[in-house]
Amino acid sequence: MTIVTTTIRGTLLSTPTSEVLDVREDHVVTVGDDGRIVSVEPAEINHAPVDIHLDRGTVLLPGLIDLHVHAPQWPQLGTGLDLPLDEWLFRYTFPLEARCADLGFANSIWSALVPALLARGTTTAVYYGSIHEPATVALAEACVRHRQRAYVGRVAMDHPQGTPAFYRDPSASEAVAASARSIEAIRALDSPLVQPIITPRFIPACTDALLEGLGELATASGALVQTHCSENDWEHGYVLDRFGVSDSVALSRFGLARDHSVLAHGCLLSDDDLTLLSRLGAGVAHCPLSNVYFGNAVFPLRRALERGLRVGLGSDIAGGAEPGMLAVCAHSVNVSRMLDDGVDQRLGSERRGVADSAIDATTAFWLATVGGAEVLGLEAGRFEPGQWFDAFTVTTIDETDRHNLDLVGTRLGIWPDLDDWPRRFEKIVRRATPADIGHVWVGGQAVSGGRALSGG
Amino acid sequence: MTIVTTTIRGTLLSTPTSEVLDVREDHVVTVGDDGRIVSVEPAEINHAPVDIHLDRGTVLLPGLIDLHVHAPQWPQLGTGLDLPLDEWLFRYTFPLEARCADLGFANSIWSALVPALLARGTTTAVYYGSIHEPATVALAEACVRHRQRAYVGRVAMDHPQGTPAFYRDPSASEAVAASARSIEAIRALDSPLVQPIITPRFIPACTDALLEGLGELATASGALVQTHCSENDWEHGYVLDRFGVSDSVALSRFGLARDHSVLAHGCLLSDDDLTLLSRLGAGVAHCPLSNVYFGNAVFPLRRALERGLRVGLGSDIAGGAEPGMLAVCAHSVNVSRMLDDGVDQRLGSERRGVADSAIDATTAFWLATVGGAEVLGLEAGRFEPGQWFDAFTVTTIDETDRHNLDLVGTRLGIWPDLDDWPRRFEKIVRRATPADIGHVWVGGQAVSGGRALSGG
Repeated sequence: MTIVTTTIRGTLLSTPTSEVLDVREDHVVTVGDDGRIVSVEPAEINHAPVDIHLDRGTVLLPGLIDLHVHAPQWPQLGTGLDLPLDEWLFRYTFPLEARCADLGFANSIWSALVPALLARGTTTAVYYGSIHEPATVALAEACVRHRQRAYVGRVAMDHPQGTPAFYRDPSASEAVAASARSIEAIRALDSPLVQPIITPRFIPACTDALLEGLGELATASGALVQTHCSENDWEHGYVLDRFGVSDSVALSRFGLARDHSVLAHGCLLSDDDLTLLSRLGAGVAHCPLSNVYFGNAVFPLRRALERGLRVGLGSDIAGGAEPGMLAVCAHSVNVSRMLDDGVDQRLGSERRGVADSAIDATTAFWLATVGGAEVLGLEAGRFEPGQWFDAFTVTTIDETDRHNLDLVGTRLGIWPDLDDWPRRFEKIVRRATPADIGHVWVGGQAVSGGRALSGG
Repeated sequence: MTIVTTTIRGTLLSTPTSEVLDVREDHVVTVGDDGRIVSVEPAEINHAPVDIHLDRGTVLLPGLIDLHVHAPQWPQLGTGLDLPLDEWLFRYTFPLEARCADLGFANSIWSALVPALLARGTTTAVYYGSIHEPATVALAEACVRHRQRAYVGRVAMDHPQGTPAFYRDPSASEAVAASARSIEAIRALDSPLVQPIITPRFIPACTDALLEGLGELATASGALVQTHCSENDWEHGYVLDRFGVSDSVALSRFGLARDHSVLAHGCLLSDDDLTLLSRLGAGVAHCPLSNVYFGNAVFPLRRALERGLRVGLGSDIAGGAEPGMLAVCAHSVNVSRMLDDGVDQRLGSERRGVADSAIDATTAFWLATVGGAEVLGLEAGRFEPGQWFDAFTVTTIDETDRHNLDLVGTRLGIWPDLDDWPRRFEKIVRRATPADIGHVWVGGQAVSGGRALSGG
């Protein structure tokens, strides 16, 4: 029988569907010793003793899910983004990732990265590690230690043209064996928080034999799969040249596009690809900011959702310069607006963009919570009994105006006190920073929040 | 004779041209009692006693110039951005601005806004006030009090169709008279920091008589002019319908597009418009984030620069959700990349975007400093003798990793200590927050910096 271990009272904001902001003022959430929500009820019904009473200006939000993080690239966040993808990888990124052969170096990154993401409300992250087994397992250990829900993958890459000699698996068979061992090692940590994930880097970095072997490993192990898919013109064209079909078709033939596979980017997915992936149960990690630099086009999000494709959001650290998923939400709104309107003023407005592409802050937040959870098959993102209690708080009123939420509006009485939640929610999504984040919970337990880490 | 009042030693970063990052390690800047730079020399040459010695991880940058701020809209920052421009104005923005009839209300905004911008390194701001003379003059006083260099304009708007009855000048002649009085009142403050600026809101809000009267006032008073210009399809089409010519041509006929006029947005400026404005000496306040929401297209920045047009950056608070000009720099890079690549994946890459549109962090920073100064005819933006000493510092190394610059890279030795400045600079532009900003100087005098205000 579940024992209630934590009771929290306050205002809950969540997005149960992509179009609905659900506001529950003065509710009580009870959390069980299994880390899941037991009940969510109005305070006037549930009179249980409260452990944490959130003040009027603080809201509780479901934890954010980052579907695409390259952990070793954390130190180069925000740099090198003027280079083409292949040059960025070979001159800049592969040398950095290769240094994770040094376990001490890797651990110094993980011990900075994982808390930094938790501090931003990222309660679940899907990580690319490096090709190194020790560094990858150490990343999983760091997630357990800091209490972040995570999917951690050893990167597999063996193609002699698509990888540099200094950062490459020695052969397809050795790569598959190393990935299999990393799955076992991560499972041996025996944490409910952390799962292994099979991680062929992307098709250009993998031989046919490796892709085939990892597809078989997915079936044999039951582990999820992540990779990149139809990211940009160069990569998309490469796969067409090599296989005569799109990434989606190729990945499906290798058994890598399957139920709950996490496919990053998808900027160039055709309607047929979207339908295929939807049928297979695979999902897309939409990385709006990274795609500005490396994607060559905007992921057709609305078309994907209309076809029933699972979609969540990713920071793509460090192809994206922004580690916080609220900021990534804002970027997803921005690029959707630019797809909708178009960019080239010399075209008439009717020919400039793609009508009906825009999303708002509610849909963006849904992508970063429920959407991401559905991609992974995770019971999270909603404030409902049975869901994991992964959540965080944002303080929206601060007498000292220290926060760059700039909720001077509230203090000046621009909004009625608890009225106009959609506008407040929009402001939270666009303006909240780590300094505005207080509590963070993963699996029902408190972890270090933003304020602690940002030293405010 | 100028007396040196401040001597600062450290690393100076600036962008003297749009393509050049100038790095001067271990230099000494001396500042005179007139607020201008006296000398900039290597420390090995200048042995003067130093007042402030910046540590190895701290850099000195020229102050940021925000060419377009709607001061009364500060409380609604980050909200309402899913509405079309005309609806956003009438339902949402005009009612807020109208409340500045209450001087106490207005002052409570100014006293939050001005320090918040200074804390982000915005040493010069070009403000739209409200239609109210007392509130507008109070904004100028707030800039003097907090020591921000500023151009402050009383908003003139009298068109019975283009404005709501509750927020409108009673007539063209009364509007011109009120603007003239506000110029005198701001000049009477007798501060070298603050200038008045003539501010017809935009053509749809102004009658012909008002536009004509303000053009004459510009000639008579010698004050600069600011307005909006070719912002989006609706506004651009409106002006074409009303006058049969573009905004640029219409504004030039009214004497409002003139030397150092600040024209916001310009998303739909034609090549002929760009050439005309360049010849007139007018400049564009490029507001990349606001344009995502209200612009319908990306300002053709590279084409404008090639034609010799003066261009700087604006936050367009609160059409843009981001008050910090470094963040606006990052957005300007983002939208330039999206214009370059295009957005619609269904088009072939050769037809998707506008080649040669991309800018990098160096050009973006140049726009926010030298570019903005050239629009205004201001001697600022460069570390050279005779320039105003408007500047700020960014701390790039922090042992506690508190800053979300995430310069873990430096601590891990990813970069050689003082090597690879272009990458560091890119990271500063994309990642520095108010918490990373230490000192801020305007006209040679220290003002409250980011750390003080963000309480970290």
